Amino acid sequence: RCHHHHSTAMLDVPFLPFCAFLGTLGLLCVAMVGTWCQHWRGGFSLDGSSRTFNWHPVLMVTGLVVLYGAAALVYRIPNTWSGPKLPWKVLHGSLALAAFVLTVLGLAAVFRFHNSQGTPNMYSLHSWMGLGTVLLFSCQWAAGFGAFLLPWAPAWLRALYKPIHVFFGSTILLLSVASCVSGINEKLFFSLKNGTAQYKLLPAEAVFANTLGLLILVFGVLVVGALARPSWKRPDSDCPDSRQ
Amino acid sequence: RCHHHHSTAMLDVPFLPFCAFLGTLGLLCVAMVGTWCQHWRGGFSLDGSSRTFNWHPVLMVTGLVVLYGAAALVYRIPNTWSGPKLPWKVLHGSLALAAFVLTVLGLAAVFRFHNSQGTPNMYSLHSWMGLGTVLLFSCQWAAGFGAFLLPWAPAWLRALYKPIHVFFGSTILLLSVASCVSGINEKLFFSLKNGTAQYKLLPAEAVFANTLGLLILVFGVLVVGALARPSWKRPDSDCPDSRQ
Repeated sequence: RCHHHHSTAMLDVPFLPFCAFLGTLGLLCVAMVGTWCQHWRGGFSLDGSSRTFNWHPVLMVTGLVVLYGAAALVYRIPNTWSGPKLPWKVLHGSLALAAFVLTVLGLAAVFRFHNSQGTPNMYSLHSWMGLGTVLLFSCQWAAGFGAFLLPWAPAWLRALYKPIHVFFGSTILLLSVASCVSGINEKLFFSLKNGTAQYKLLPAEAVFANTLGLLILVFGVLVVGALARPSWKRPDSDCPDSRQ
Repeated sequence: RCHHHHSTAMLDVPFLPFCAFLGTLGLLCVAMVGTWCQHWRGGFSLDGSSRTFNWHPVLMVTGLVVLYGAAALVYRIPNTWSGPKLPWKVLHGSLALAAFVLTVLGLAAVFRFHNSQGTPNMYSLHSWMGLGTVLLFSCQWAAGFGAFLLPWAPAWLRALYKPIHVFFGSTILLLSVASCVSGINEKLFFSLKNGTAQYKLLPAEAVFANTLGLLILVFGVLVVGALARPSWKRPDSDCPDSRQ
């Protein structure tokens, strides 16, 4: 009945080279969002101008996409499958916490920019989806810390919460990628309005930032695909989620 | 070692009530995108005006999100697990084909609108992502038809292609949801520019369409979550994707 084994083995990719590829792609996204803001959008400052806003995309892509993706993949590293689990839990939680800190700074950058320009906060669909993603992320981190790192959660509670944590882990990354894409799209409409640099004339900045958006999408889809791949999961958690 | 069984059983939701909920949510999305275009955006026509454009969001949400989601979930219906598979394959392929036809009409609506207004096509990140999604969908449909419905594909090829088809099935839905969200966001910036109806003042239309965007996101995440749930998969395809 299980004649799939032989042929799916042909599709097996080793995890670590795939991870190296993902790491390169993530770094490329960070480098590109930094280059976009530095080269076309005037660089960075803390003075409340659009140069303060520029921290927003850089911190969000670095924190909520790339570092978050690295945190999510920790338990897929085969070295984590034997020996004590606690150091890996601490690494997973620390990377996620670092991602969260960058994310909060990224929010602070856009709120500071809006407030100093007299622009309302939280009206666009991008902002609703983005803040919803960050709120889910904060619940996810707090619940994961309480259930898996603090010593007093009972085993049944950990087992009950684990599939929920795993599901929201992928969901939050997908929401954050969708937020990035809508944010880049909206920023290009805001910024490229006049003369020969209109968005619709597709100047170099638009091609560059559109490409960045597509690379962020590819990064997110590949991380979620890697997380979902059965053969890359920690064997002792391969317990089927079914009543059979 | 498998002490998860008891507690994950507590999380088991029956598939059919969940499906009824998803169906209701999908119909709500379709009703809301229709209401948005009819009530706030001037309704529908084929004259090349913005009333022609209005077909674009309605057809995309109906085809590439809701009908596509229904097509994706066919094999999760327990009735499909016994008896001949061909009728269900035909249903899956037909729903996907109907979704594809609506999608192509949705593309035609926006190209017709742009061309009759003299607006360039295919410059925004939304358009790149959206067209990429439709191109992936067309490859997915053609490859699925060739491999699974035509009789002459060998079993090893079907087994090899199946996990790829499943992975892209979920990926295309996520990309289409991300495209919808960036499209709604961009349309609201275009449409709500003047007077008391500015997007940043959050008029009723903006609250309504932002809510629509969030509901589309929830629909997409729930469909992909349902597809990924091991206990809802067709048992004879529960062959682990691993070399163990």
